[in-house]
Amino acid sequence: MQEIPLGMVGGGQGALIGGVHRIAARLDGRFRLVAGALSSTPEKSRASGAELGLDPARIYDDYRQMAIREARRKDGIRAVAIVTPNHMHTGPAIEFLKRGIHVICDKPLTATLAEAKKLAQAAEKSKALFVLTHNYTGYPLVRQARAMVARGDLGTLRLVQVEYLQDWLTEPAEAAGSKQAEWRVDPARAGLGGALGDIGTHAWNLAAFVTGMEPEAVAADLSSFGPGRVLDDNAHVMLRYANGARGTLLASQVAPGNENGLRLRVYGTKGGLEWAQEDPNRMWFTPFGGEKRLLTRNGAGADPEAQRVSRVPGGHPEGYLEAFATIYAEAARAIRAHEAGEAPPAEVTYPTLTDGLSGIRFVAACVQSARRNAAWVKP
Amino acid sequence: MQEIPLGMVGGGQGALIGGVHRIAARLDGRFRLVAGALSSTPEKSRASGAELGLDPARIYDDYRQMAIREARRKDGIRAVAIVTPNHMHTGPAIEFLKRGIHVICDKPLTATLAEAKKLAQAAEKSKALFVLTHNYTGYPLVRQARAMVARGDLGTLRLVQVEYLQDWLTEPAEAAGSKQAEWRVDPARAGLGGALGDIGTHAWNLAAFVTGMEPEAVAADLSSFGPGRVLDDNAHVMLRYANGARGTLLASQVAPGNENGLRLRVYGTKGGLEWAQEDPNRMWFTPFGGEKRLLTRNGAGADPEAQRVSRVPGGHPEGYLEAFATIYAEAARAIRAHEAGEAPPAEVTYPTLTDGLSGIRFVAACVQSARRNAAWVKP
Amino acid sequence: MQEIPLGMVGGGQGALIGGVHRIAARLDGRFRLVAGALSSTPEKSRASGAELGLDPARIYDDYRQMAIREARRKDGIRAVAIVTPNHMHTGPAIEFLKRGIHVICDKPLTATLAEAKKLAQAAEKSKALFVLTHNYTGYPLVRQARAMVARGDLGTLRLVQVEYLQDWLTEPAEAAGSKQAEWRVDPARAGLGGALGDIGTHAWNLAAFVTGMEPEAVAADLSSFGPGRVLDDNAHVMLRYANGARGTLLASQVAPGNENGLRLRVYGTKGGLEWAQEDPNRMWFTPFGGEKRLLTRNGAGADPEAQRVSRVPGGHPEGYLEAFATIYAEAARAIRAHEAGEAPPAEVTYPTLTDGLSGIRFVAACVQSARRNAAWVKP
Amino acid sequence: MQEIPLGMVGGGQGALIGGVHRIAARLDGRFRLVAGALSSTPEKSRASGAELGLDPARIYDDYRQMAIREARRKDGIRAVAIVTPNHMHTGPAIEFLKRGIHVICDKPLTATLAEAKKLAQAAEKSKALFVLTHNYTGYPLVRQARAMVARGDLGTLRLVQVEYLQDWLTEPAEAAGSKQAEWRVDPARAGLGGALGDIGTHAWNLAAFVTGMEPEAVAADLSSFGPGRVLDDNAHVMLRYANGARGTLLASQVAPGNENGLRLRVYGTKGGLEWAQEDPNRMWFTPFGGEKRLLTRNGAGADPEAQRVSRVPGGHPEGYLEAFATIYAEAARAIRAHEAGEAPPAEVTYPTLTDGLSGIRFVAACVQSARRNAAWVKP
Repeated sequence: MQEIPLGMVGGGQGALIGGVHRIAARLDGRFRLVAGALSSTPEKSRASGAELGLDPARIYDDYRQMAIREARRKDGIRAVAIVTPNHMHTGPAIEFLKRGIHVICDKPLTATLAEAKKLAQAAEKSKALFVLTHNYTGYPLVRQARAMVARGDLGTLRLVQVEYLQDWLTEPAEAAGSKQAEWRVDPARAGLGGALGDIGTHAWNLAAFVTGMEPEAVAADLSSFGPGRVLDDNAHVMLRYANGARGTLLASQVAPGNENGLRLRVYGTKGGLEWAQEDPNRMWFTPFGGEKRLLTRNGAGADPEAQRVSRVPGGHPEGYLEAFATIYAEAARAIRAHEAGEAPPAEVTYPTLTDGLSGIRFVAACVQSARRNAAWVKP
Repeated sequence: MQEIPLGMVGGGQGALIGGVHRIAARLDGRFRLVAGALSSTPEKSRASGAELGLDPARIYDDYRQMAIREARRKDGIRAVAIVTPNHMHTGPAIEFLKRGIHVICDKPLTATLAEAKKLAQAAEKSKALFVLTHNYTGYPLVRQARAMVARGDLGTLRLVQVEYLQDWLTEPAEAAGSKQAEWRVDPARAGLGGALGDIGTHAWNLAAFVTGMEPEAVAADLSSFGPGRVLDDNAHVMLRYANGARGTLLASQVAPGNENGLRLRVYGTKGGLEWAQEDPNRMWFTPFGGEKRLLTRNGAGADPEAQRVSRVPGGHPEGYLEAFATIYAEAARAIRAHEAGEAPPAEVTYPTLTDGLSGIRFVAACVQSARRNAAWVKP
Repeated sequence: MQEIPLGMVGGGQGALIGGVHRIAARLDGRFRLVAGALSSTPEKSRASGAELGLDPARIYDDYRQMAIREARRKDGIRAVAIVTPNHMHTGPAIEFLKRGIHVICDKPLTATLAEAKKLAQAAEKSKALFVLTHNYTGYPLVRQARAMVARGDLGTLRLVQVEYLQDWLTEPAEAAGSKQAEWRVDPARAGLGGALGDIGTHAWNLAAFVTGMEPEAVAADLSSFGPGRVLDDNAHVMLRYANGARGTLLASQVAPGNENGLRLRVYGTKGGLEWAQEDPNRMWFTPFGGEKRLLTRNGAGADPEAQRVSRVPGGHPEGYLEAFATIYAEAARAIRAHEAGEAPPAEVTYPTLTDGLSGIRFVAACVQSARRNAAWVKP
Repeated sequence: MQEIPLGMVGGGQGALIGGVHRIAARLDGRFRLVAGALSSTPEKSRASGAELGLDPARIYDDYRQMAIREARRKDGIRAVAIVTPNHMHTGPAIEFLKRGIHVICDKPLTATLAEAKKLAQAAEKSKALFVLTHNYTGYPLVRQARAMVARGDLGTLRLVQVEYLQDWLTEPAEAAGSKQAEWRVDPARAGLGGALGDIGTHAWNLAAFVTGMEPEAVAADLSSFGPGRVLDDNAHVMLRYANGARGTLLASQVAPGNENGLRLRVYGTKGGLEWAQEDPNRMWFTPFGGEKRLLTRNGAGADPEAQRVSRVPGGHPEGYLEAFATIYAEAARAIRAHEAGEAPPAEVTYPTLTDGLSGIRFVAACVQSARRNAAWVKP
């Protein structure tokens, strides 16, 4: 199995998510990082690339340069990971897409709805694939949850309760020198949404992935608790689905005691499911009237959909990096099929530009709803 | 320590909550059940009273008869427990209050706001005490949570998330012969609210008890998933507090896998608290930036407020009946002080008519909000 | 239903377990405390009795006096609770048994094996019943575990792992004025075993109750970590059963972080069960090859054996006091049947003198094994 | 950072642990698999190597051939992973060690004590490093536990309770065609110990790693519950330490409901620690007399020792593969230092031949103890 040569935009020294993408790309041996425009500061790009052992000739000063030169090389990159702040996704993505280089882009899709639409057009014109790293859909038990809903184990869905609670912005980390915080609270770089964009889009995507439904209306109450903050750091959202189902989505970065509390509960006429990202190898399923069951990753009762994306047996915990790597592994399968002129295998699943667009619509709808005192708005 | 003679209205054979009140009254040895109008059907009242070993002369055909005759006896009851369906609280409560007999009434206060106001007037005129059994406030760790919030351990409160999820009405139990279900889904007996009234009021009360704040506006999305149901069996409610804090309140009786899932989370500028009724001897507290701590009932770090209402050391679980009994024990302390012409001890705390009225206002506001498409309504 | 008049030996002011017995006796309304020799110090007995509202004529200076006088009264006690330290069980028990008064005795049975045998003889001669409060067998899910094992849900048993870990003797509490600690570390009052007697006997009894088997050999390694301690404060014991099953029993009072950690695991050819006293409303059952199931007290999948001794529905936690009260309730049923000249109902179950004797044999065998460097000894 | 070229012995198609080693080697980008003798069947070795994308010239028919030829290549492997069944560790390890190729060997060290000693001699003569993959020591919170014990957070240790429970051999999987089961129950391939060797050595190693102590005597009760089994599938072991501390070690492969239940509890005069491999991102610490604290991986209160081997922030679960990769990462650091003629950085830690020898001595001592009816034996 040959590795797919990969480039990276962003992710230089000091960045968190770049390192995550690199491990995820490498974990299953499907990609090999060979080029990078790792920072908008050329010196930093070079130092970062050297640290990663990249060929100096393939460390670039900017993403455009990388796109042009790599597209010309025989052994050029066939895919690029874009791991910059939100407002810096659209530019590079379009450059690579138009040169037929597959794009693996961090979330949320863009900073604004306008950018998202522009990017969608570029992607439509390109033959290259676009993969969005809504990484939580890579967890085996999330795959299983989706399969269970799809085959009716829960009956008709009635309730969808998703939440993503963190605490790291409880105090103004942005004023204390945290780079992670700085850009995330800055509308110029983060876009319309604060917590909404950063983690609310994950929650939105997870709920949609598992249930196979998207709300037709949202009513949002947004707050900015941090002193001086312009963007939301807390969002309470009610959801209405076309089939009559109801939901809630909570996103907070000011809830002390929550490190990375993404949790999903889905209840239907026949049963209920509960899953939490911080304990990802276990999921609760209760058939109505029966006993609660603890489904374990790749353990007794695992569905093929979950087994396929598991690497080790039950009881040997997989985590965040493995789930992230599954997005890359799925991307690799799709890219190989695409390059062979074939359709990807039916079971291959990854978040696409459509999912990204949906996330941005969600953020925009919540912001609009909040401005109208939490009126219902169609995303 | 002499026991206070107690009467009971409702709670005959087949009733659930009557038995709970009887155990709660007895557990700490502060009350003794000596009289009853246990059913609106005289034969059933008599059979039930006999089963409980009551003196036949003090088993009554109806509550009015009981109020009149017991008030005349030298050894007559000094308190009465009212454990009938919601629409049958006001009538008996007024009869006893006007005769100076203390009332211990099940929740919610009444079926309608009009009744609630009428009852409030009667209580104001009476010298007798009125105790509402929002029993969850009797849990030692709930007392501790209240004390922690009050002394500022959490800083300024920002978020209040309370939920009460059950699953027993997932299928139409009311059509399958469940007496418990029948009256709770019947507007004539339950009143304005379904899940809202039955369990939403508990959630509302718990949040208010712990935080010391009540929302100034609610936005409610109500659903009736059960076929043919008129009242809500699911409620999603957003909350706004005067100080800028925000909250959510979920109440559901159609969430499979939830037996009695009352959970409260409170987050402030300095820390967060989490407590769940099904695991009531443990509570999580995280001071922001520090490690999560597991507070145990009457264990290391227990506050005096929690120790005072604990009966056994940490590690020896107390439960629902003990918390319920604490409401009775507090009532007994207040009654004794009252009869001695004294103020009750400062630490004695129990839910009052004011709390009950607040709960009914909450239900009414949610119903009104729901009719206006989840607009914000002041409770 | 008439209450059975009850006396109490021990349990005066400052005692812990006396209060527990009183609540347990009262909780289900089957007993009424009317007499007491609550302390070996007459003044203290009187003060304690007054505080409890006992008729001064029925507060006694010593247990012999109480036995004699109550036996003569027409309305005399029909049962007595003995809640003194271990070395003070045999004397009072024999006095009451020989007068036909039923005995409800705290555990362990006695301080020594010699006493235990003497008491056994007295009980055999008496027509009165003897009930030992191994209260943990009163938990509904412990009843369910026993029923599941009995009907073969686990197949043939292979492994029994029971442990009872506490931490309150980590530091020398006996030197710091704890009355609870003082007598428990004193061989003259506690007897042969320290942790073994106080909590090891509970663990031993629980395992025997659930599995229906008692080991035929034990190998024990005992330690006295507390400075100056003579009795064990930690016990590691290996167990061998006649059918080839194997087990371990751990008892410790020096394991920081454990409040009252009684836990049982039983594994057979077809499945496994796990239960912990600190979380008593939930039990894990895994049929081999299937998913783990969470059995809840009185919830989905509850056995009749568990439902019979439950008071409230699943999700409404019952605890330590309820389980203790179930021992009293079972005793009441047995006493009523006995007084009516009938056999007790088949389902009535409570720990007897035989169980108590077994516990003392266990302690003696462990002490003997430890002296022989953990050689195997038959209990 | 250049990758270290790596070979592999064993781990061909159908093997489980080979794949784990490959991911672990790759995850941090420190090794690159370039050669293999992946099966003792040459055809299978070739097919497996092709599947992994190895250069056909570097797929070998047997490990000796690989050792000889790779040692001669300029770009030859500098390290080899040995992932064969236990009885096939010694042969290849010696071949590579004597050619100066670093060995990363799966556990347990060998099948017999004689082999272990032979291997130890070979390692002593070689300049190459020997790394044993007791992977559980790679978990960040295990590193933290070790640091906490070392700096005295627990005071003087008194109790060490370690257990490793699985259920996969509850029924005779070896008769049902499981390759994993077949060799593990076969004395010729597994060696002296069954569960003892396979998982007991992990438990032994984990306890030693965290506490910094090894028992001076063990008393073992071994069982072979599976029909026809010669080796133990269940082990109950009591431990005695030189400083007076006591311990227990349980290893079972017949405990239904346990997937991979490695758990460690350590109690000292000042506090207690609890950690479980299936929930590896959380650890409990209780300072005696204080509240229980939940330490999270790389969260609040993380020690530098734990942070150093964490890849992502708290709340983003790491798992089994990351811990395994940490052993490889530590090996890489040691190899680089070694090749540079330097001592490895002080903080680098990995299990060595000494640890492996200790594990084999433990197995041998248990087997001897069991033969002598669980007498105390020095390992």
